[in-house]
Amino acid sequence: MSKRILPPRRFIKPTFECLIEKKRDGGEFTQEEIRYIIDSTLDGDLPEHQLSALLMAIYFQQMSAQETAELTEEMMLSGEVIDLSHIAKPKIDKYSTGGVGDKTSLVLVPLAMASGVVVPMMCGNEHDYIINTLTKLSAVPGFKDELSIEDFVNQLGKIGGAIVKQDEGLAPAVAKFYQMRKATGTIPSLPLITGSVLSKKLAEGSEGLVIDVKWGNGSFIKDLEQAKQLARSMTRVGRSMKRRCVALVTDMNQPLGDTVGTALELKEAIQLLKGEGPEDLQELVLKLGMEIVRLAGVAGSTLSAKQTVQRHLTDSSALEKLKDLIKAQGGDASYIDNPEKFGEAKHIRKLPAPKRGYVHTINAAMIARGVRILGAGKISPKGKIDYAVGVSEIRKVATQVKQGEPLMMIHYNDESKLEQALEYFKSAYRLAPKRPTPPPLVVERVA
Amino acid sequence: MSKRILPPRRFIKPTFECLIEKKRDGGEFTQEEIRYIIDSTLDGDLPEHQLSALLMAIYFQQMSAQETAELTEEMMLSGEVIDLSHIAKPKIDKYSTGGVGDKTSLVLVPLAMASGVVVPMMCGNEHDYIINTLTKLSAVPGFKDELSIEDFVNQLGKIGGAIVKQDEGLAPAVAKFYQMRKATGTIPSLPLITGSVLSKKLAEGSEGLVIDVKWGNGSFIKDLEQAKQLARSMTRVGRSMKRRCVALVTDMNQPLGDTVGTALELKEAIQLLKGEGPEDLQELVLKLGMEIVRLAGVAGSTLSAKQTVQRHLTDSSALEKLKDLIKAQGGDASYIDNPEKFGEAKHIRKLPAPKRGYVHTINAAMIARGVRILGAGKISPKGKIDYAVGVSEIRKVATQVKQGEPLMMIHYNDESKLEQALEYFKSAYRLAPKRPTPPPLVVERVA
Repeated sequence: MSKRILPPRRFIKPTFECLIEKKRDGGEFTQEEIRYIIDSTLDGDLPEHQLSALLMAIYFQQMSAQETAELTEEMMLSGEVIDLSHIAKPKIDKYSTGGVGDKTSLVLVPLAMASGVVVPMMCGNEHDYIINTLTKLSAVPGFKDELSIEDFVNQLGKIGGAIVKQDEGLAPAVAKFYQMRKATGTIPSLPLITGSVLSKKLAEGSEGLVIDVKWGNGSFIKDLEQAKQLARSMTRVGRSMKRRCVALVTDMNQPLGDTVGTALELKEAIQLLKGEGPEDLQELVLKLGMEIVRLAGVAGSTLSAKQTVQRHLTDSSALEKLKDLIKAQGGDASYIDNPEKFGEAKHIRKLPAPKRGYVHTINAAMIARGVRILGAGKISPKGKIDYAVGVSEIRKVATQVKQGEPLMMIHYNDESKLEQALEYFKSAYRLAPKRPTPPPLVVERVA
Repeated sequence: MSKRILPPRRFIKPTFECLIEKKRDGGEFTQEEIRYIIDSTLDGDLPEHQLSALLMAIYFQQMSAQETAELTEEMMLSGEVIDLSHIAKPKIDKYSTGGVGDKTSLVLVPLAMASGVVVPMMCGNEHDYIINTLTKLSAVPGFKDELSIEDFVNQLGKIGGAIVKQDEGLAPAVAKFYQMRKATGTIPSLPLITGSVLSKKLAEGSEGLVIDVKWGNGSFIKDLEQAKQLARSMTRVGRSMKRRCVALVTDMNQPLGDTVGTALELKEAIQLLKGEGPEDLQELVLKLGMEIVRLAGVAGSTLSAKQTVQRHLTDSSALEKLKDLIKAQGGDASYIDNPEKFGEAKHIRKLPAPKRGYVHTINAAMIARGVRILGAGKISPKGKIDYAVGVSEIRKVATQVKQGEPLMMIHYNDESKLEQALEYFKSAYRLAPKRPTPPPLVVERVA
């Protein structure tokens, strides 16, 4: 018996009100409906007040796995999609939901490049208190964070990596959605986060994605269960779009590493690229790095992945790749060889422990906010960044301190900003007489 | 010990985003916050996309009794509030959530007037398929549905009643909210309905309100439990605003009475004002009428309330009051004495029963939609109304019919509209071999 061939269904445009009501009542959008919503958003047919009501309805009613995948795909297809198929090497990107003191991308991109993996990394705008990778790189004189898509692709072909600003032509629906979500309390919606992040990342042309989903007081995801859900949502959608995806759910209940700032973090990244640096960062770089090389197919077994990562961190091949990338983007790579060129802040003072005890908790967001007040990070889009300021030698959770001993060192140039920043730093620390169990760094692996 | 007097709290304006997030997360607004939202809505400071997101958050998270009362009060205070305190008689209004074939206001307003109760009735716009009281009254030549507030108050003082269009100066926040709610699927929110309805009604200056909350296939409230909730929400808010309030939850799973149309319904109302007319309408008029006279304090006991209502319906004093009202508003009251002046449609034909059996269900909304297609009701704000069209002799639920017997009579002028209307009428009826139990007309009384 021959299979009956159904004629293509004709899509009759519903009213936006109908679509809102459908989602309000827990209905599931078809791909045509999602496409219609995205198209209408971009061409301005969908009024903002209806879009925002729809986003709030999605916040409450969620989206199914299939809807989320279709949302991601339609958002991706709303703009340019970069074709990197002419580059023979595996193309893998890395994404983090954002953390305080997280300089892993500065290490992982050159590490991947050294391992024969191409990394087409585009970074979004800074959100709230997080200092992003591009702001840190801008401490290197001459470094350009914008490339045309052509130059971006050429650089990938030539040196195997690039770290640039998100191109506005990619997944433009995301920006429009984000603008609405920001004003309407609908940022923390799993399907909307998944769609926004993945559509942009997948438009970059990578074949796979390693995702670091951070949970804790320094992440916008405060709840571990939610972080796990986001990790599952993202990997599921990635898979359904035929990309290799792995997510690690990691701890962000204290800053990563010993420093928070811009040049301070760059210097710490350089240490890591020499196989040194703080333990927690080394562990995270190793684990994420192993995921990248395995996803890329460069290393088959866990052991060979570990060896690959460790080799490139100790033979300085990854460090050389960072210099290549900086040079390719117009930066002065001599700063990488001589990190002292970044200079120091005028003043460095300690944050003294108010009593003896163990560091019980550190509110990472508070630390980050204090560092922003000192002048690191962009306060406004055109704001000047003070590259030397920040904090270093952060005493991490479970460390024992005596009264008056430094909890961290504060690097600052402007005395007038110190007082307010100090308030944040002080309130970030809680000491206790008993040693707490430090939280596990990698909580779960989702593949 | 003297009681400590707290200084007045200073209200620091929150961002709209904060307010949206507060409601999104189930928080309760303070009166200051609600006032700020209403004020900002009216002066345009609150952007539409944020208002609509807020409304959707309210849809999902509801509002507490206190919040709803404060919303109602702030909406009322957003515009003019009519002062009727110089009128000595009790001032009671009646409100219905809207039903098919519901002509009770045409009877109850003059009935109340005859009983010594002043009724300051303002009607909102027609929604969807419901033909409202003013549209029915517009069948009377010359009848004016707009009065200045001054003329409105003067007429109330002179004859004790008026039925006019909602004045735009009263509770203007309601219209702005409604415009947004209509576009964003947030109409069916109990606190928003309560706030919108009561703020307008209470701004009219009445001391009490009798509310008819209809549930069923002809109401926008399809669910009995929801209707009960709305009744409770409205009476609770009314009480907290120091107004006397009673609500009856009544059946709207079939048209009320025997007719749906404009002049057809007016004629049926005139019958009722003569103590005649269909049983269901007589019952509802009696019950709502009793609530009005008891709420007004005109009648103390149930028995005296019943006697008061029945007396005014049989001694034609209520009928005279309808004529007074129509005359006062410029209408030709001779139509009330001689209802045949309204004229007849060119064609009257039956809707034949497709088989023998009992009327099992009637979809009242379908009947109403069919009648609108025939030309009754305003299709557009400026649309012409065909006063003669509609349906009569509606066979109600549990009536036995033989095949080919009329389920109702269709009055129409335009042959070309009949076919589409017939589709609605036919699909409205379901016949069954067994006699169903007719639904109770008044389900619950909430005081």
